[in-house]
Amino acid sequence: MYKSEQLARSIRALIENGSWQAHSKLPSLREQVQRSGFSLMTVLNAYQELEAQGLVYSKEKSGYFVAGNLATQALAHHPETKLNAHIEINSQVFNYLKATQDEEIVPLGSAFPCSDLLYNAKLMQIIAQHAKRKRSYLNSDSMPPGNLELRKIIASRYSLQGIPTDANDIVITSGALEALNLSLQALTQAGDYILLQQNIFYGAWQAAERLGLKVITIPEHPQHGFDLVSFDAALNKYPIKVCWLMLNSHNPIGFTVSNEIKFQIAKLLHEHQVYLIEDDVYQELYYGAQKPLPMKYFDQHNYVLHCSSFSKTIGMGTRIGWVHVGKFSNAIQHLQMMSTLSASTLVQHALVDFLPSHHYEKHLRQLRLQLEHNKQVFYQFLKAHLSTQCEIYYYSSGYFLWVKLPEHVDSMSLYRQLLEYKIAIAPSSLFRLNTLTQNFIRINCSFNLNERIQQALAQLICCIQQAINHRSDSR
Amino acid sequence: MYKSEQLARSIRALIENGSWQAHSKLPSLREQVQRSGFSLMTVLNAYQELEAQGLVYSKEKSGYFVAGNLATQALAHHPETKLNAHIEINSQVFNYLKATQDEEIVPLGSAFPCSDLLYNAKLMQIIAQHAKRKRSYLNSDSMPPGNLELRKIIASRYSLQGIPTDANDIVITSGALEALNLSLQALTQAGDYILLQQNIFYGAWQAAERLGLKVITIPEHPQHGFDLVSFDAALNKYPIKVCWLMLNSHNPIGFTVSNEIKFQIAKLLHEHQVYLIEDDVYQELYYGAQKPLPMKYFDQHNYVLHCSSFSKTIGMGTRIGWVHVGKFSNAIQHLQMMSTLSASTLVQHALVDFLPSHHYEKHLRQLRLQLEHNKQVFYQFLKAHLSTQCEIYYYSSGYFLWVKLPEHVDSMSLYRQLLEYKIAIAPSSLFRLNTLTQNFIRINCSFNLNERIQQALAQLICCIQQAINHRSDSR
Repeated sequence: MYKSEQLARSIRALIENGSWQAHSKLPSLREQVQRSGFSLMTVLNAYQELEAQGLVYSKEKSGYFVAGNLATQALAHHPETKLNAHIEINSQVFNYLKATQDEEIVPLGSAFPCSDLLYNAKLMQIIAQHAKRKRSYLNSDSMPPGNLELRKIIASRYSLQGIPTDANDIVITSGALEALNLSLQALTQAGDYILLQQNIFYGAWQAAERLGLKVITIPEHPQHGFDLVSFDAALNKYPIKVCWLMLNSHNPIGFTVSNEIKFQIAKLLHEHQVYLIEDDVYQELYYGAQKPLPMKYFDQHNYVLHCSSFSKTIGMGTRIGWVHVGKFSNAIQHLQMMSTLSASTLVQHALVDFLPSHHYEKHLRQLRLQLEHNKQVFYQFLKAHLSTQCEIYYYSSGYFLWVKLPEHVDSMSLYRQLLEYKIAIAPSSLFRLNTLTQNFIRINCSFNLNERIQQALAQLICCIQQAINHRSDSR
Repeated sequence: MYKSEQLARSIRALIENGSWQAHSKLPSLREQVQRSGFSLMTVLNAYQELEAQGLVYSKEKSGYFVAGNLATQALAHHPETKLNAHIEINSQVFNYLKATQDEEIVPLGSAFPCSDLLYNAKLMQIIAQHAKRKRSYLNSDSMPPGNLELRKIIASRYSLQGIPTDANDIVITSGALEALNLSLQALTQAGDYILLQQNIFYGAWQAAERLGLKVITIPEHPQHGFDLVSFDAALNKYPIKVCWLMLNSHNPIGFTVSNEIKFQIAKLLHEHQVYLIEDDVYQELYYGAQKPLPMKYFDQHNYVLHCSSFSKTIGMGTRIGWVHVGKFSNAIQHLQMMSTLSASTLVQHALVDFLPSHHYEKHLRQLRLQLEHNKQVFYQFLKAHLSTQCEIYYYSSGYFLWVKLPEHVDSMSLYRQLLEYKIAIAPSSLFRLNTLTQNFIRINCSFNLNERIQQALAQLICCIQQAINHRSDSR
């Protein structure tokens, strides 16, 4: 990492955790040189980088200032809750996913990081070694709750984060998708009420539809990501049984909710005796020094089922996820026994050797740096070329950019148009109900900005401009 | 294979396909020597082996005769259909499976062949090679319907059997269990009627319960395995939407239904416009020269969804199954996308190299021979030591023996008692409703009859004897 990137990151952390308020003045270049020990050029590069990201702005002869909270621009606030008794997002998601399977398509709409970044030669070497051992054939691991050693390792990772966890708290699943689905199935019956964020991973909508649940949505909070007031109101108004939330590196928007808010959510869950299914698949893809805490950390009364996987860190093809089951271990194992039985035993064995080695942590460190770098490059490219009528929401984790287009631009039409150019984006209708405006897109920026990707982004920018102009022309 | 085994097998085939009727006289030893070209000793050994298996009996000075049809003894005939609006087999299966997970337990109740038999060094070598290639990380295969090359190979295996099949007809799943579940989910809605065999793989009961289906059962036919009259009557009486049947190496009983009956089933399905989910996971584990035909072969009008996997041939840990989807490809892919996304891409890649090689066919040949041998050894041991009040039903495929105990012996109590000795068997209540008698057990005889297994069988025989005596004592 360049020194300027390092400095920019530490300043960004101060801005994002609220230490440096909006519109307060940054230390002058000279002061910063003295404070940091970096050269003037390094400090200047760092400030310009932050400016390019929209985190600070400069006034001539006055220096640099902290920008208004990005999220303030990003999230329009609709503080009402919504009841959506019938969900019909399924077919759309299916068609979308099928359309983007083609290898010739530039996968800017993908939910997975560029597979080149996930490739880990050491893990593959370990898998190859295991493939030579007869033990990988044994049946003992191929039943719920999964390989004991692997569960111990996952449990110890929770414990290291201050969440006392035992191997018996963990059930290994075929990816986080199965973890989330089994959890919801274990906790609900058809007709039950479930609470979702207004924008959320489409898997939540699909599961709700499939299980015949009534969905209440609450809007995102413009500054904090999560709206406690709406949440409390919804819990008071509806007999909600389960919430399904993303609070770290939210998909599709990208925000991470503060610990204070998480603490309050936990309190409300306990007060209302409502369970939470926490989707935390991006937990390892933070950019700062600290892994964000999951809701499970604040969960003193066992209302949280925490779901994650290795799909976003070592590859979706591994199909190994897990759920921290709380008191629902039996119910979830039971459902798994009826549906898929187990995840690949070979890969489970291999992970047991790979995870505790320094290789995994090293891999994660590199992955985070690469994702941060690529996201910044994407951001700068879009910021430089995209119409100023669009707003780009940059959060320092993960690999998504959430882009707000002018209200008259329909992201689904844009998606269809780009598909003709063999480019996929994720339109907002995948994540939110049709009753809301659909002028948002999610862009996967985990890729190197090579010529192919740059051409795709240029085409995206061009199509957006056309859509904007089309409205202006027809006025 | 010994010559005597070869001869015994060809005679057994003649008996089982009905060419040699019950109580008809076998060729004399001398005649058989002339016919077969084998030595007198070989012929004698073969006849004695068949006698040990209960397939023939000898009369002093008269020679050998074909025994009464085994199935006639085995399957009491209850030609009425049954409506079971509410199923509660789930919890019992769960407790059963959990209790038998312990590695210290002798797994005579397991549904999977002894893992030593499944181990294939060549496959593992191929997996190890693939684990060194970056390509296994690519995302293109990790979406339904699964790896194209693998689907082509599976399709060609159908085509070789005379079932014209295209790669697009196949969806790869996480084992056959997922294939069966997704098929049922795609075809039914809560409240629909489904038809099952009276005894069937517990996964069918679990799926029916989970999806809220009404279950109609038909009894097995004492001679033919499948009762066409009951089947026709049930289709006429109830608005059945889907059947879920096993017709090859039936689990738990073991019979394989004749082609003539399969043809008639296909006709009735078409007449009544009813779909069939065919569970054919033991299709490769036949002992004769010909792989039994699946219902799919007789299905001219696309009413059959044929489900199978590699779990019973190369290991349950592989978690690769498939469904021949007929016209339901989209519906099934759609459901898979919502639940598990895909099976392990690495293993899919490896199978693409392994399956078309001669290694897989060689592996299958060895596996069949070993299973046949082990099953015969088990059968002979049980026949020699088990109370004559029990009936053992031997069919020449797979690795299950279905044992009928005297009616007053409850297989569930026997199961619990044996568990204290660290021995698991499969009691009939796993496969049939509680309203029926539960005096059957399924024994997995895929193991080498080593000391540990022999002790377990001796303990089983002893406990059965005690249970029989207990009744006699209390009279």
